[in-house]
Amino acid sequence: MFFASDNWAGAHPAINERLLKESTRFAAAYGTSELDRAIEQRFNEIFEREVAVFFVATGTAANSLALASLAKPGGVTFAHSEAHVIEDECGAPDFFSGMRMSPVPGALGKMDPKQLRSRIARYPQDAVHHGRATAITMTQATEVGSIYSLTEIEEIAGIAKEHGLPLHMDGARFANALVQLGATPAEMTWKRGVDVLSFGGTKNGCWCAEAIVFFDPEMARELPFIRKRSAQLFSKSRFIAAQFEAYLQDNLWLDLARHANAMADRLRAGLEASNSARLAWPTASNEVFAVIPKSTAQAAEAGGAKFYDWLEPHDMPEPVAEHDLLIRLVTSFATEPQDVDAFLDVIAAG
Amino acid sequence: MFFASDNWAGAHPAINERLLKESTRFAAAYGTSELDRAIEQRFNEIFEREVAVFFVATGTAANSLALASLAKPGGVTFAHSEAHVIEDECGAPDFFSGMRMSPVPGALGKMDPKQLRSRIARYPQDAVHHGRATAITMTQATEVGSIYSLTEIEEIAGIAKEHGLPLHMDGARFANALVQLGATPAEMTWKRGVDVLSFGGTKNGCWCAEAIVFFDPEMARELPFIRKRSAQLFSKSRFIAAQFEAYLQDNLWLDLARHANAMADRLRAGLEASNSARLAWPTASNEVFAVIPKSTAQAAEAGGAKFYDWLEPHDMPEPVAEHDLLIRLVTSFATEPQDVDAFLDVIAAG
Amino acid sequence: MFFASDNWAGAHPAINERLLKESTRFAAAYGTSELDRAIEQRFNEIFEREVAVFFVATGTAANSLALASLAKPGGVTFAHSEAHVIEDECGAPDFFSGMRMSPVPGALGKMDPKQLRSRIARYPQDAVHHGRATAITMTQATEVGSIYSLTEIEEIAGIAKEHGLPLHMDGARFANALVQLGATPAEMTWKRGVDVLSFGGTKNGCWCAEAIVFFDPEMARELPFIRKRSAQLFSKSRFIAAQFEAYLQDNLWLDLARHANAMADRLRAGLEASNSARLAWPTASNEVFAVIPKSTAQAAEAGGAKFYDWLEPHDMPEPVAEHDLLIRLVTSFATEPQDVDAFLDVIAAG
Amino acid sequence: MFFASDNWAGAHPAINERLLKESTRFAAAYGTSELDRAIEQRFNEIFEREVAVFFVATGTAANSLALASLAKPGGVTFAHSEAHVIEDECGAPDFFSGMRMSPVPGALGKMDPKQLRSRIARYPQDAVHHGRATAITMTQATEVGSIYSLTEIEEIAGIAKEHGLPLHMDGARFANALVQLGATPAEMTWKRGVDVLSFGGTKNGCWCAEAIVFFDPEMARELPFIRKRSAQLFSKSRFIAAQFEAYLQDNLWLDLARHANAMADRLRAGLEASNSARLAWPTASNEVFAVIPKSTAQAAEAGGAKFYDWLEPHDMPEPVAEHDLLIRLVTSFATEPQDVDAFLDVIAAG
Repeated sequence: MFFASDNWAGAHPAINERLLKESTRFAAAYGTSELDRAIEQRFNEIFEREVAVFFVATGTAANSLALASLAKPGGVTFAHSEAHVIEDECGAPDFFSGMRMSPVPGALGKMDPKQLRSRIARYPQDAVHHGRATAITMTQATEVGSIYSLTEIEEIAGIAKEHGLPLHMDGARFANALVQLGATPAEMTWKRGVDVLSFGGTKNGCWCAEAIVFFDPEMARELPFIRKRSAQLFSKSRFIAAQFEAYLQDNLWLDLARHANAMADRLRAGLEASNSARLAWPTASNEVFAVIPKSTAQAAEAGGAKFYDWLEPHDMPEPVAEHDLLIRLVTSFATEPQDVDAFLDVIAAG
Repeated sequence: MFFASDNWAGAHPAINERLLKESTRFAAAYGTSELDRAIEQRFNEIFEREVAVFFVATGTAANSLALASLAKPGGVTFAHSEAHVIEDECGAPDFFSGMRMSPVPGALGKMDPKQLRSRIARYPQDAVHHGRATAITMTQATEVGSIYSLTEIEEIAGIAKEHGLPLHMDGARFANALVQLGATPAEMTWKRGVDVLSFGGTKNGCWCAEAIVFFDPEMARELPFIRKRSAQLFSKSRFIAAQFEAYLQDNLWLDLARHANAMADRLRAGLEASNSARLAWPTASNEVFAVIPKSTAQAAEAGGAKFYDWLEPHDMPEPVAEHDLLIRLVTSFATEPQDVDAFLDVIAAG
Repeated sequence: MFFASDNWAGAHPAINERLLKESTRFAAAYGTSELDRAIEQRFNEIFEREVAVFFVATGTAANSLALASLAKPGGVTFAHSEAHVIEDECGAPDFFSGMRMSPVPGALGKMDPKQLRSRIARYPQDAVHHGRATAITMTQATEVGSIYSLTEIEEIAGIAKEHGLPLHMDGARFANALVQLGATPAEMTWKRGVDVLSFGGTKNGCWCAEAIVFFDPEMARELPFIRKRSAQLFSKSRFIAAQFEAYLQDNLWLDLARHANAMADRLRAGLEASNSARLAWPTASNEVFAVIPKSTAQAAEAGGAKFYDWLEPHDMPEPVAEHDLLIRLVTSFATEPQDVDAFLDVIAAG
Repeated sequence: MFFASDNWAGAHPAINERLLKESTRFAAAYGTSELDRAIEQRFNEIFEREVAVFFVATGTAANSLALASLAKPGGVTFAHSEAHVIEDECGAPDFFSGMRMSPVPGALGKMDPKQLRSRIARYPQDAVHHGRATAITMTQATEVGSIYSLTEIEEIAGIAKEHGLPLHMDGARFANALVQLGATPAEMTWKRGVDVLSFGGTKNGCWCAEAIVFFDPEMARELPFIRKRSAQLFSKSRFIAAQFEAYLQDNLWLDLARHANAMADRLRAGLEASNSARLAWPTASNEVFAVIPKSTAQAAEAGGAKFYDWLEPHDMPEPVAEHDLLIRLVTSFATEPQDVDAFLDVIAAG
């Protein structure tokens, strides 16, 4: 009953197998091996165009270095107020990019386009005192389990283009959003106006595989130096490449995401049907937020269930009662139906 | 015949096996799992005292974050002029620590104590204009294959203590130096005055396992925040822990280093006996520098041998002739005797 | 009719005279002259305790370097959402301190204590992911012309102490607030819990005189290096000292602030009595915010009046009508009663 | 007998007078006044082309922000090993630019072209590990009183252009070099290949007037934001402009520099004729380095003379004997012939 986070899971057997194979070979270091090259080519295919790809160690690194590559002195980047880059990365995006992250409100973890426009308007391009609007970053799927529709992405991208701002997408849970929308990687990114993507594999079956993807390779010009100076260039880079090779082969990544999402569906259905719990707000993807009695939460934890309390957001549809608790439940490629059912049983038992 | 670098090797089977086992489990993320805790305990045993241990993604990160934890505004860190932190990390140590790296000359990659004193004297503690001496970093084994003796470490440490400066050791090839000296980890570090260590596992059989070790845990107070802000906190941190578990078990790490060094001995012996090559300078550990005819180098490469040219150092004992080439040969846990012999045959064939 | 800002004024004759005298002498550079020492002693007297004083070039520098001296990796500083450090310094405080500025709401430019507590609670001391609460900065007088009472300062300081956070005060208009409260410098700062002060002289009659004042000199330990590395150590530092000497002599600074405030009183009284204008919100000190018809504003500008439009704040008591304009009027030591009256006449004329 | 530094002098009466006049006016802040504009135009005339000019507080700021505007991630800037940017600015250039300063040897404070080439060769444009050559900075007049001839400037600039590197000139003593060479400002800068200049007025009669001058305004695109974020945008900027106005009027600046140099000539002549002192090395401009008996130095100091000891450079033509002292003597616009003669008398008296 591990629902604390999708990064509590291990790694998928196919990925392990590929790593094993890689471990018995010699190959060039620092991202220059043939395998590194081959995986870069694989990203071109996946995204249906020539892209520039850079492996890094963590999702925080992917976001921070992507933003660093878009940075200008006095720059301001806009992100949802509850975005990972603002609330969960200890200031790393600010540190690496030298920019400030400006919080944009919006329901269900998605930036409100009107609010976004209003924030951008405070930072015009000649605003030496205020600082200047320089980039926008959006999270897909969001921190609270929602997903921007393709039209919503297009709307944010439209605002970005209108102001001449590059658009970054934090795709720590990219695959979960993708299969939910039934879109292609291209459709959910550059075809809708995304310029740079943090492409996460770690939460979805790899043990450490994060990539920055530039849809215009020219924008990546400084990244090799930014990455090395940021201590993010792996010597045995091909072990990241190997994970991605297995991950992307025969649509494994999409299957894993579909499984995680299906497990979340099962959870949602069970909680909706439950008398002792309710969904805090509607989610898609592999995150579920529920309100359960504190006593039930204790019982669940005593029974071995793992999950995190969650801070009530500003736009909480229905407040959490004193004796209740808001919790987050995350499923992954490794979640088994019986885990879900066991958890629902514990909840039902109250 | 892979002698380009020890990071061209793969990963040792025992480490792979341990990773496989880890991949099928769920566990807490971000370095809080029981395995993470257990490995920290293991480091205590290895170093015979309570230490503070932090995993990071690369050797550059280990060096940079270690120095960042010792930093002061206007600080100057002293390192050998050919040190990795100065010549091979794209300024990452400066970037993360905000300090400048001040080059100290010395023969065979080791800081000359007299030169070190003279450099420190330029940066007294009240030198607002020049900047102030703040830390010393030494590399063991050095970039050019030499090793500081325990007495030499003690001498550098003595200078550090005398000036109130913390001493960092870049141990990317720590194990290779350790087995060469026949010392214990404690003897080669804190017992001789080292305060912080970059403990490298990647070059010696792991695929990605680097740790910062503080011998006074109080000095590590800021490191958790420095690491997270530096985007170096792995979500699936326990996969680093797992590598270290296997690496440190039953002295595997020492055996691997002994093997690599033995392969280097075999290379050295063969080159010394050769008519068509000479050792550029004496080395210990797993790095060998040789001078060979350019034509021989071409023949070797045509035969599949991998190695790098090397820039002639200032203190080159005997200059490289026009028709010759200075090359670096690095052995690893994965080097086979027949690879060495094959290479020596190619050299002999000219 | 110069009401655009108090930094549009020139310099007071007494300060000019002192600068003239200084210009004919030789003296030691970089803040080491006898005059520099004497002024530091003067600050001790003014603040009734031993303080550490550092001259810098701008108010932004004073704020940024003060915060840099309080910084920790992953640190978060709390400031009012409309504070100068957040909205008007192009990210300089973040740049120099490496901290993020977290906006705290509150009416009339003053942090709401409850909101402040709630923000701090999001960043506990072990919050590696979120970052940790590290400092609080308050502005006295505020950006919108209000003043924290001594009790209000004490309340903010109480929250700071409770959480172990140092408290900085941005005193760009320190004197204006001081004379308004009728307090002593000590009473408005360290006696109420302020730890570090940006003491501004430029807006009140100097042409360039800003100081950082530490009430616990021990907290200033790193400042000499921070200042030099920040390119803020004047070679002819004594010309700042000279300005402060004249500024602080015979309470000139308080007289100048009283004059500026009196001119603002005159403005306020005139606007309150006016049929064609209203005060946007109550202010003390030398800033007045008024709502006037757009046509009147144009007429005033045509007549030579200088002032700035102002962005409507969230807590605007009564919204600005379509045909009206919110403007800021700032008086200074150099404002003459006839300027105020002329302006009021223009407004009255509509 | 003030020979400690040219920044021990006060300010020239013409500059004081202009400041007085400025102090009685109101004018727009933050560099937007008509006077600011007029002075920018004045710089165009002085340099015979359209330039972009930015005032800052200190010479360190001018150098640091100029380099920041040229910076790239992983960038390396080349400077003479004894350059101010390396030895006397507490790491500010590294801090603001994020680049490392790479020391280039050379006799008499001037970069040796061959050594410069050799350093640049270590940092090619694709050298992710080493970092990449990004800028060159030269000092005119140098730290040790020498001056690059126009041909020598052209040679350095040639190397810069050849490698596609922008060339910065630290002109803290620009005027002293200019009058010595009898060149025009254009000839000593952009006509010989200089791209950016730190134009210093403080050491030559202003009390605080430093400017960054870009000969290609397009290169200055980011500077307004860099300057504000660096806390270097004066609110009463026009007081810097006013100093420059007086400084540049009727060639005052050149007259002042000629005077300072003439005083240095008088010193040099006296020391050369002296039995109890010798010139340490040949200098031009307003700096003189002498070797005198320690006892004489003590007597001079007892007699009220002010000067600094100097660290013996690597290329010291003739070593300093045990009982001797190497000292630096700097003259300025305010040095009087009788001060020089009095000092020479003290030296002669031994």
